Amino acid sequence: LNRVLITGARGFIGRHALRPLAERGYEIVAPTSGVASNGDPAVRWVACDLLAAGAAERLIAETQPTHLLHLAWYTEHGRFWNGRENLPWLAASVQLVDAFAAAGGRRAVIAGSCTEYDWSAPQPCCESSTPLRPHTLYGTCKKALFEVASAHAALAGISLAWGRIFLLHGPHEGAARFVPSLVRAMLAGRPAPMTHGLQRRDFLHVADVADAFAALLDSAVTGPVNIGSGEPVRLLDVATHIAHRLDGIPLLHAGALPARPDDPDALYPDVARLRDEVGWAPHFSLADGLDDSIAWWRSQDAAVTGP
Amino acid sequence: LNRVLITGARGFIGRHALRPLAERGYEIVAPTSGVASNGDPAVRWVACDLLAAGAAERLIAETQPTHLLHLAWYTEHGRFWNGRENLPWLAASVQLVDAFAAAGGRRAVIAGSCTEYDWSAPQPCCESSTPLRPHTLYGTCKKALFEVASAHAALAGISLAWGRIFLLHGPHEGAARFVPSLVRAMLAGRPAPMTHGLQRRDFLHVADVADAFAALLDSAVTGPVNIGSGEPVRLLDVATHIAHRLDGIPLLHAGALPARPDDPDALYPDVARLRDEVGWAPHFSLADGLDDSIAWWRSQDAAVTGP
Repeated sequence: LNRVLITGARGFIGRHALRPLAERGYEIVAPTSGVASNGDPAVRWVACDLLAAGAAERLIAETQPTHLLHLAWYTEHGRFWNGRENLPWLAASVQLVDAFAAAGGRRAVIAGSCTEYDWSAPQPCCESSTPLRPHTLYGTCKKALFEVASAHAALAGISLAWGRIFLLHGPHEGAARFVPSLVRAMLAGRPAPMTHGLQRRDFLHVADVADAFAALLDSAVTGPVNIGSGEPVRLLDVATHIAHRLDGIPLLHAGALPARPDDPDALYPDVARLRDEVGWAPHFSLADGLDDSIAWWRSQDAAVTGP
Repeated sequence: LNRVLITGARGFIGRHALRPLAERGYEIVAPTSGVASNGDPAVRWVACDLLAAGAAERLIAETQPTHLLHLAWYTEHGRFWNGRENLPWLAASVQLVDAFAAAGGRRAVIAGSCTEYDWSAPQPCCESSTPLRPHTLYGTCKKALFEVASAHAALAGISLAWGRIFLLHGPHEGAARFVPSLVRAMLAGRPAPMTHGLQRRDFLHVADVADAFAALLDSAVTGPVNIGSGEPVRLLDVATHIAHRLDGIPLLHAGALPARPDDPDALYPDVARLRDEVGWAPHFSLADGLDDSIAWWRSQDAAVTGP
């Protein structure tokens, strides 16, 4: 029996991870602080606020998972970079890893982030050679969890991998983020401002990110693994694709927003570990993925504004 | 008003920190999981197990400290290097720092360790130039707390210093550790085995370590600060001093124990920050400090074995 405890199962990535986990034969247990059932018989929802005192230990004791996929974290757009909420999430995550290992858990995969890397290092970011030097409290806490969980896993004899997420987009993304802000503006016929757009980034559709995490969990690969497409593009190329699809070229205002002072010119992963060791490749091309995101936002905005 | 919350106040270092804090004018609040009073009117003892769920937040809310001196950690000899108990201590420490900052705390000092440094780096260890690369779970957790607390303190506007402890000895030290093991063997007329003893280390009497922490807390110095004498010695020199005092030279068997594989030839601090920025120097010479330790162990063993 493989029973996976997945945290953040109602979140942006987690909601797309349930099917890939079920398809790989996992029995799924999902803590949620919201309503504890969506009628999906493949998932056992458990009412649990991971930040509540003692929650992680009780959750592990009650559910006895063999596998852990820890995606939950504080993600409020704009605030999550440096908000104090990162600290309770770090504390709860440390407790979760400790309880999982102590209860005989075998395999854990935790969501890390490109924010752990030194953004001034040469690109692509490589798991084994690019220095870790976070510029944010979020990245600092993720890196701290990576180092502590890795050291503990080696001692406790559990298998642990750490998936470092780069950029992603798709259904249920925060509306203020890059792709949704452009799509929604153009759908509404409003101007769509952005920065200069020359930054090189790696985008994955969120369903691909979730599938990559399921594949990583189901593999025996340990240590840090970058999660990306391996095909970096300029932000302006992404924006231009969206604008073409929505007849929004006249609405697109590249350079209308200032880039953040610490916004790197290039930030994208070396995906050799994910491709060659995990054996995973994206299902969506960039264009197909963006078209899916556009279709979802169109359906959402149609639902809001009515026919 | 300066009200310091001191954790680990009944511990090896903490018990020596109460007087130096009181002498510097601090009102002292001390959580303890043991008996909550020793009759010392200068200290307000508060019953609290820092590892209990939600304890850190409640403690801060109840005591409203302006200063925090966080010394408590898991320290069981032999087990503390890699025991899982390091993880709940990290989680509780993160929660403590978060709650302290959120409640308007002004100044925090936390106990770090020489185990955070890369032990293969050239000596002495310098706060600004020696790489951090812990070899143990203890060191990994301390380094994680250092990085997270430092990043959060800068954002939250609290003043934070991090005292890195090297070797120490004195009353109430664990009986299995280096100085007590030699002293007690020689007091009992038993053979006193040790490793080759050529390792260079820095020793402070625990009362000096505690006084250095009080001085650091009372300063405006921020960031990592090594806590040491600045006068490294060989372990064999320490052992020989003890043996001379106890007529134990024939009992001393240097080389009788194997050195640990990861035992570095040299590990000692650059103490320029402590000496020049904090303005602190030890009260005990090495010889006087060891004589004090010897006297304390003699009194203990006398109390146990009777007249």
